Amino acid sequence: MKFLDYAVRISEMVDRFIYDVIKGSPIELYEASLHYVKSGGKRLRPLIAILSGRIAGGKEEVVLPGAAAVEILHTFTLVHDDIIDKDEFRRGVPTVHRIWGIDMAIVAGDTLYAYSYKCLLQALYQNIPSDRVAKALEFLTNAAITVAEGQALDMLLPSRSSVGENDYIEMVKKKTASLFASSAAIGATLAGGSRDIVEKLYETMIMAGIAFQIRDDILGLIGDEKTLGKPVYSDLREGKMTILVIYALANSDEKNRNKIRFVLGNRAATVEELAEVVDLIKRLGSIDYANALADRYASKAIALVESIKSEDEEALSMMNDVVKFMVKRNY
Amino acid sequence: MKFLDYAVRISEMVDRFIYDVIKGSPIELYEASLHYVKSGGKRLRPLIAILSGRIAGGKEEVVLPGAAAVEILHTFTLVHDDIIDKDEFRRGVPTVHRIWGIDMAIVAGDTLYAYSYKCLLQALYQNIPSDRVAKALEFLTNAAITVAEGQALDMLLPSRSSVGENDYIEMVKKKTASLFASSAAIGATLAGGSRDIVEKLYETMIMAGIAFQIRDDILGLIGDEKTLGKPVYSDLREGKMTILVIYALANSDEKNRNKIRFVLGNRAATVEELAEVVDLIKRLGSIDYANALADRYASKAIALVESIKSEDEEALSMMNDVVKFMVKRNY
Repeated sequence: MKFLDYAVRISEMVDRFIYDVIKGSPIELYEASLHYVKSGGKRLRPLIAILSGRIAGGKEEVVLPGAAAVEILHTFTLVHDDIIDKDEFRRGVPTVHRIWGIDMAIVAGDTLYAYSYKCLLQALYQNIPSDRVAKALEFLTNAAITVAEGQALDMLLPSRSSVGENDYIEMVKKKTASLFASSAAIGATLAGGSRDIVEKLYETMIMAGIAFQIRDDILGLIGDEKTLGKPVYSDLREGKMTILVIYALANSDEKNRNKIRFVLGNRAATVEELAEVVDLIKRLGSIDYANALADRYASKAIALVESIKSEDEEALSMMNDVVKFMVKRNY
Repeated sequence: MKFLDYAVRISEMVDRFIYDVIKGSPIELYEASLHYVKSGGKRLRPLIAILSGRIAGGKEEVVLPGAAAVEILHTFTLVHDDIIDKDEFRRGVPTVHRIWGIDMAIVAGDTLYAYSYKCLLQALYQNIPSDRVAKALEFLTNAAITVAEGQALDMLLPSRSSVGENDYIEMVKKKTASLFASSAAIGATLAGGSRDIVEKLYETMIMAGIAFQIRDDILGLIGDEKTLGKPVYSDLREGKMTILVIYALANSDEKNRNKIRFVLGNRAATVEELAEVVDLIKRLGSIDYANALADRYASKAIALVESIKSEDEEALSMMNDVVKFMVKRNY
């Protein structure tokens, strides 16, 4: 697809910007902070920001500080989430806390957080009106708050007595979709887009982000280690309340429910026990159910993005492709 | 002193503002986030912000969003620092991570971080020009970066082969003084103060902040549990490279150096062993040395604040008192 070449170019542009802004001492702190930036990633959120800016009538350079800001905010969440989830690998490399220890990983995350704002504030030096920058900062801040609420929900749901689809959608919307949506809103805002275009792009990305996370949860259950960049069964071991687990629990008899509950969050569960539960979850129809749910959000996202008008038809066409890429089935 | 009554009034104003802005769900996250706000604290940084705003010619209300922002940024650092330092008590209550667990404490800190920006961004709705708000946001962001660098240094110094006074001053300047200085700069900036007044207030607080931290380190060595709000000997148990330890190590013979090194960061050290090392550090003249060092920074701070001119003589007089309060000997 055409947008993939463009994505590479934007990714290089964003990385140059990031390396230019994020530097200082002590060196250990900066190495830990930049570890995930150096180890890959799709730079999907910066791409969404830049395309949104173009759709709203702005140039790439104008949106660049916002594009870097959302990538760095995303990276900060990865560093802290990996500590919380006790993940050992990310993007095929050891996690920050495994290399530098939990304490330094906490501070590295905090450092990235501040640099996310520093990136966005660079817009002030590029002749972007300060009221636009201020509005973009509000989107960034609301995203940061919402992502933290989503992370807290993710941690709390496993211990709640009853968890339904609504809880899952609220969690996913906060933890994943809100940053995609804010990336779009920040891009369009820096470009001086109208309230209408900002809102449409925001809403598109809420829907696309939810579909994206549902597909990601499915992949987390049935993907292999190479595709995932981390060990299989991580979500089950960590006790994550994915829609697959929620559906399976709601549609099992007592015996199967106990089997699922036994492995959930149980770091001592064997690979055989985990594989058996994955089979069970599949047999209960969870994957079809989750895909159908993702399809509904995907349709909304696609209808929304197709309703957007812009003079930059190339950007609009690529945004259509990005939405389809985000919400597509992976297998 | 007159400023103490004023401090109480400002503290109430700031707390109302904070409780008005910081709310949401899940409830557990917000309870953890607001735990230290509810459990006391001097609100020294908001007071500095408000007085700086008045000195620069602004009204209290104009500076209030900045005053709340610096208090919340400070509170965030406390939550994460307590995890890192394994502290069990703060302000006389159990630390956030002891009540809600480390994972929730990480996210609570992250939440406060975002709300610090949200507080400051409220200034946009109080008819403060957005370029002033943007400038204040830059001070907040630079403080956040610098505090993280200071925290990293604090963690790294104990494992460095040689640590001198310069390392300690750099660490203290970044970890403690920079947020005091930014509090002043944010207040003066929101009030529309000139570059000259912003810089003078900033520099005053760098000097006062360094003196404040040196006195705090002395108190940490010789204070009692009630004054400290946490167990005695915490700094030694945590292996902190305070100026007292640095001076003592540099002025001991091999035998005494080994005694000090044995208890530093040794959580298994007995109270007797710790008390013996405290005695040793005292006998080596560390406290006199540290006080003399603090005196030098205190003098600079006092000379700087006395050089500031303002039409608001009441605010200037209270700021003089605040500086003296910050840098005074505690015993």
